[in-house]
Amino acid sequence: MATFTELLSYDNDVFRAYVFWSTILIVKTLSMSFLTARQRFKNKVFANPEDAGPQKAKVKYDDPDVERVRRAHRNDLENVFPFILVAFFYVLTNPEAYLAINLFRAAVISRIVHTLVYAVWVIPQPARGLAFFVCLGSTLFMAFKTIVFFI
Amino acid sequence: MATFTELLSYDNDVFRAYVFWSTILIVKTLSMSFLTARQRFKNKVFANPEDAGPQKAKVKYDDPDVERVRRAHRNDLENVFPFILVAFFYVLTNPEAYLAINLFRAAVISRIVHTLVYAVWVIPQPARGLAFFVCLGSTLFMAFKTIVFFI
Amino acid sequence: MATFTELLSYDNDVFRAYVFWSTILIVKTLSMSFLTARQRFKNKVFANPEDAGPQKAKVKYDDPDVERVRRAHRNDLENVFPFILVAFFYVLTNPEAYLAINLFRAAVISRIVHTLVYAVWVIPQPARGLAFFVCLGSTLFMAFKTIVFFI
Repeated sequence: MATFTELLSYDNDVFRAYVFWSTILIVKTLSMSFLTARQRFKNKVFANPEDAGPQKAKVKYDDPDVERVRRAHRNDLENVFPFILVAFFYVLTNPEAYLAINLFRAAVISRIVHTLVYAVWVIPQPARGLAFFVCLGSTLFMAFKTIVFFI
Repeated sequence: MATFTELLSYDNDVFRAYVFWSTILIVKTLSMSFLTARQRFKNKVFANPEDAGPQKAKVKYDDPDVERVRRAHRNDLENVFPFILVAFFYVLTNPEAYLAINLFRAAVISRIVHTLVYAVWVIPQPARGLAFFVCLGSTLFMAFKTIVFFI
Repeated sequence: MATFTELLSYDNDVFRAYVFWSTILIVKTLSMSFLTARQRFKNKVFANPEDAGPQKAKVKYDDPDVERVRRAHRNDLENVFPFILVAFFYVLTNPEAYLAINLFRAAVISRIVHTLVYAVWVIPQPARGLAFFVCLGSTLFMAFKTIVFFI
């Protein structure tokens, strides 16, 4: 059996793909803050009196455009961190490289699509649902494999 | 002193228990999405107009049943990821196996109980408070041990 | 090139600083629960009927003091976990120690300042914005370095 030292190595294509795609996904998640700010400035709606400033923008919590981006961001928090943590454990099960790397790709690309159809273009369902389930399915599959391996 | 390579190993019972229990806890956290969806469909209350669909379900943000599950889910985000990250660092301090493994077990089981008493059965306090503090206490204990070791 | 085994080691100052500062930051994030509870008890405003108890405190979701702390907490979730995950990957790129350790310090201290100016003292802008961007900038810089290294 490959040791974890061999698996957590630059020479392991699976681990290298894991770090690359995870970092891409975190940058995507961080970019949600800018999407939220863009909606706040466009609609002049802020959550804090000190942000509304002298131009007397509104302080409110239910602007539909702002809340839509915030829901997309929260959905990222709920799904992106589980994916990254479980995928790390999954790398330790020494998975078949082709399968593992494509699971990472599919999950990350589906989360980017999720953001586009939820918070940028507002595409009708089932676009968002499908994007959501690709990443969730990938994470649950890896979690199952990890549990079976480490039980 | 054991090297980190020896600690991050399949032969280390503590690390194996860490991966197993962390993955269980992530699956539990992911399941909150299904609990939320169940309440949304039961009460016909959605957050997005495109989800309400042709059956003209309501779009609102303050349904008590939906929001209860969402608070339980958010509480998971606030406590589960800190536990998993700190427990990883704690494994590197080479803790006594019996203590470490039972800290992991207690934390994960208490978060499952937290979900049951908060979002499934709605049990009166102090059930939820106790479940909350078992995981938090376990995490803070491990954080303290980690800080002392790595300072 | 240093192997990951050499980098993920107690002898690597960068990794030791990473674990130390990350754990400090997680403890800070966990402390937001206490800040929220303090505001809830001070203003007698709870989110759940079972918490309001026999003293008949109010159940509401829009108390400005409580929501301010909750926004600060959510901003932690959005920024702290990305920082900790990306910094772990960044350690594997074998960065220059002086730079890496100061990036960790700056990010963690800026998040502590963020909490103080947002949820404890309520300092006017741009204090919060600056604190926010120091951690975000540090994370994005490390993410860029990681992507270039692992591509």
